[in-house]
Amino acid sequence: LIGSEGTLAVITAAWLRLVPAPELALPVLASYADVAAGCAAVQRVLANGLAVAALEYMDARTLALCARDFPFALGDDAPGFMVLAEADGSASEARALAAELARVLGEDATALHAPTDRREIGALWRWRERTSLVVAAAHGGKLSEDIVVPLDRLAEAITATLEIGAAHGLDACSWGHAGDGNLHSTLLFAPGEAGALERADAAAEDLFALAVRLGGSISGEHGIGYAKRGQLARQWAPGALALHAQIKRAFDPKNLLNPGKKLAGGAR
Amino acid sequence: LIGSEGTLAVITAAWLRLVPAPELALPVLASYADVAAGCAAVQRVLANGLAVAALEYMDARTLALCARDFPFALGDDAPGFMVLAEADGSASEARALAAELARVLGEDATALHAPTDRREIGALWRWRERTSLVVAAAHGGKLSEDIVVPLDRLAEAITATLEIGAAHGLDACSWGHAGDGNLHSTLLFAPGEAGALERADAAAEDLFALAVRLGGSISGEHGIGYAKRGQLARQWAPGALALHAQIKRAFDPKNLLNPGKKLAGGAR
Repeated sequence: LIGSEGTLAVITAAWLRLVPAPELALPVLASYADVAAGCAAVQRVLANGLAVAALEYMDARTLALCARDFPFALGDDAPGFMVLAEADGSASEARALAAELARVLGEDATALHAPTDRREIGALWRWRERTSLVVAAAHGGKLSEDIVVPLDRLAEAITATLEIGAAHGLDACSWGHAGDGNLHSTLLFAPGEAGALERADAAAEDLFALAVRLGGSISGEHGIGYAKRGQLARQWAPGALALHAQIKRAFDPKNLLNPGKKLAGGAR
Repeated sequence: LIGSEGTLAVITAAWLRLVPAPELALPVLASYADVAAGCAAVQRVLANGLAVAALEYMDARTLALCARDFPFALGDDAPGFMVLAEADGSASEARALAAELARVLGEDATALHAPTDRREIGALWRWRERTSLVVAAAHGGKLSEDIVVPLDRLAEAITATLEIGAAHGLDACSWGHAGDGNLHSTLLFAPGEAGALERADAAAEDLFALAVRLGGSISGEHGIGYAKRGQLARQWAPGALALHAQIKRAFDPKNLLNPGKKLAGGAR
């Protein structure tokens, strides 16, 4: 039932296995000259076996939009790329991992910042959490697509996001969960501008095609739902789609469960 | 496809996300007077949020069979129950966690041993890994069932395993992955003894009923396969079984994939 998005069953009870909260969590922030250098740093973190709690990125355009709001001086006024990693665990473990992160991320960085003050850390994450709203405010409207690609194609996907935006005459940017190869590829437009939403929709189709071409998926974490209904046909063979529909019919012959989601067409 | 045991599809390619090997792994071994004290210790470990890499148990009968072979002096000649936990991570993390484990497991223990010598640790795990063979050698034959119960019913399941054995005139014991509530409930018999295998089979049926009665499952980790085909009817409603069969038909209408496994009956 995992991934069925409520189209097959209703959860009536669940057991949760809770993970103890870490004693300490320390962010390490690094800026890079460009996408290639930043994505290489992301790969270094994972190739070194550093078990980070977060490994985020922002591209240059996202940073330009969010820079005004940045909570402290980074030492690089116009970064080409930013990686934000977090080390957590016991206090000693988090400190040791943060030091290793600083070493591995710092190799090719234009600036590095590893705050340890609780207030500064809180301000940093609040800044990160505002990204989507700040980006949306730039032109007043945005379309964000949650695509995911294999990690070794991340740099390509980030660059292609800008190219796709440009091809449709749209400002574009991306940020996301670099460690998972998960991009929030975003198209920016003024809601009142004639044809802008249609161009953004067309660009989104190109983003889905990009994700599939790079061996990824049209949804990294947000699912298919209503917004991406029918899009599974891009990445699945017809036989897999037919099986999907058969399973839906077996579980829900009357189409009562979350109807109209995931698969194309109104009925199921 | 998770849990389908090869009855729905064939895996042709897989991506593995590897977890770095821990720098150090330290076992902590504790003996208890009885099942209740031992299971309380297991619950204490988890309730204290100690993220152990292993949390195993052996009951008194298993220990009696394996004692001759024990690799070092434990300080308790006839333990009523034994818990074997492992702390891993970086060297400092493993040491800190092992010390916490020793404190939490030690509270009510009759003996405690936390080897740090690499050779001694290796000997301990080899001893643990021989359990199944040593137990099988006691009478020459055994039937082990891999049941699982909610952790707060573990003590009940361990005690009931002995009662079920006795009711069928069989020597019985159990050991397993206490942290998951997973028992290897085992019935021992001499292969040549008239009716022994039949009695063991009947006792195994009682073990499955026990697991379901305690809110658990007939298989903790080894799956249904051929040996437990048809047994899902014990724990699933008829509607769930019918859905299971429908899904099998959708994926494999010609019944080519691992036929005769999981569901009852030869055909599917």
